[in-house]
Amino acid sequence: MSLPEQQYQLRVYYEDTDAGGNVYHANYLNYCERARTEWLRELGINQSFFLEQNCGFVVRTLAMDNVAAAKLDDLLTVTSTISELKRASVRFLQQITNQHGQVLCQIKVLVAYIDLQRAKPCAIPNQILGALKGVS
Amino acid sequence: MSLPEQQYQLRVYYEDTDAGGNVYHANYLNYCERARTEWLRELGINQSFFLEQNCGFVVRTLAMDNVAAAKLDDLLTVTSTISELKRASVRFLQQITNQHGQVLCQIKVLVAYIDLQRAKPCAIPNQILGALKGVS
Amino acid sequence: MSLPEQQYQLRVYYEDTDAGGNVYHANYLNYCERARTEWLRELGINQSFFLEQNCGFVVRTLAMDNVAAAKLDDLLTVTSTISELKRASVRFLQQITNQHGQVLCQIKVLVAYIDLQRAKPCAIPNQILGALKGVS
Amino acid sequence: MSLPEQQYQLRVYYEDTDAGGNVYHANYLNYCERARTEWLRELGINQSFFLEQNCGFVVRTLAMDNVAAAKLDDLLTVTSTISELKRASVRFLQQITNQHGQVLCQIKVLVAYIDLQRAKPCAIPNQILGALKGVS
Repeated sequence: MSLPEQQYQLRVYYEDTDAGGNVYHANYLNYCERARTEWLRELGINQSFFLEQNCGFVVRTLAMDNVAAAKLDDLLTVTSTISELKRASVRFLQQITNQHGQVLCQIKVLVAYIDLQRAKPCAIPNQILGALKGVS
Repeated sequence: MSLPEQQYQLRVYYEDTDAGGNVYHANYLNYCERARTEWLRELGINQSFFLEQNCGFVVRTLAMDNVAAAKLDDLLTVTSTISELKRASVRFLQQITNQHGQVLCQIKVLVAYIDLQRAKPCAIPNQILGALKGVS
Repeated sequence: MSLPEQQYQLRVYYEDTDAGGNVYHANYLNYCERARTEWLRELGINQSFFLEQNCGFVVRTLAMDNVAAAKLDDLLTVTSTISELKRASVRFLQQITNQHGQVLCQIKVLVAYIDLQRAKPCAIPNQILGALKGVS
Repeated sequence: MSLPEQQYQLRVYYEDTDAGGNVYHANYLNYCERARTEWLRELGINQSFFLEQNCGFVVRTLAMDNVAAAKLDDLLTVTSTISELKRASVRFLQQITNQHGQVLCQIKVLVAYIDLQRAKPCAIPNQILGALKGVS
């Protein structure tokens, strides 16, 4: 039995907001990366293990559509699904909603697995690939 | 029955680290503010309610002692106590430990309650003051 | 005489990097917003003036293509052009290059002008629109 | 003849502010670190060179006194002096003022030079120490 999607909850703090009174747009990217990280963790994978071998996921392309703004104290949910899984990259669809169920932001992101030292793409380790296959 | 201290847990993500491989030092201040915010929330207080009235806590003075570094994927605990509670300010002692119980960072912070528009100190609302008195 | 494009330079500091050794991807969005802000400033416009009237630009949609990574101490240039100027929104093309002339990142961003209090789109003030028309 | 102090200018962007309308307090630590970095750069030292050897400065202790708030579009100056220079650490006094000459924040910070891999203090390289001796 697989998880077709993952849900990650987070709270908006002062650090996330800007003088316009809303969450600063770049922080939605952080939220989505936290969600991807927690999904991996649920699947038994800690990225720090792979970082020690100088490997990791990097964001290659990203499309963000902001529909409404998040505010201080909002309780946000990032819902993530995998739309494509290849040997060296993963494509995620991620949606951020607030505590009222309102959709705030949709993100499509392609993350590539790379050798961080040589800045070269490389195959996703079988341990990670297998775990992701189970949920995609 | 009062809570003599509050504990808040958080995870270290890529966004928190720097090229030295550790959590960037300024982020410890963010972690401590999240912990203070969650303590208030446990006591029934959402700061966004007071922000709408243009009031809020600001950090007046702060002393930080970094003993060891936090790393990617660490699960940190911020333990907070109130060391002084006045009409318009609160002094917190906060300590950050990692999942091995190692103390990473100690912070003493004086937060003042101010009118954000006029940048003037003002009395902490009774709703907040009463709640904090119960736990200090 | 118009400026068909604007160039903004910035330095990469420890705060911008992550444990992978590169600039954390969300920070490219910050860099692009700094560049847009400085372009407005060169045209005589300070956004804080409009913020006091509770109006400002927000990012509506954004597409980012990351080609290579920025590193600590890199001197980056953000080159910005306006690809579409409408009554209530502006579309920018922005490219980030490093000190070797290498293209690192390309961003297409649609920013909308909104009433921040009511979260409603509104017409870009004539002072800003006129200034942008001169350079687009 | 030496520089008894260094001045570094920076602009406040939306990313730096929070929903209270001011610069989020932790960002003052970033500003001070940028100023220390630029001082080293003026002295001919790029920290990325030493980072490649897995060495760098980390903040050991820090005291911050916030007197007034910085706002969007403010042009800030960080004035830095060295108050103590030892074999493996440097103590800086740093003050942040705005474009009206108003003092906003004072920071005393002790940075230690460490082997980042082993998390052990080590002697500041002679190239850096000599450069700092010339200005302290």
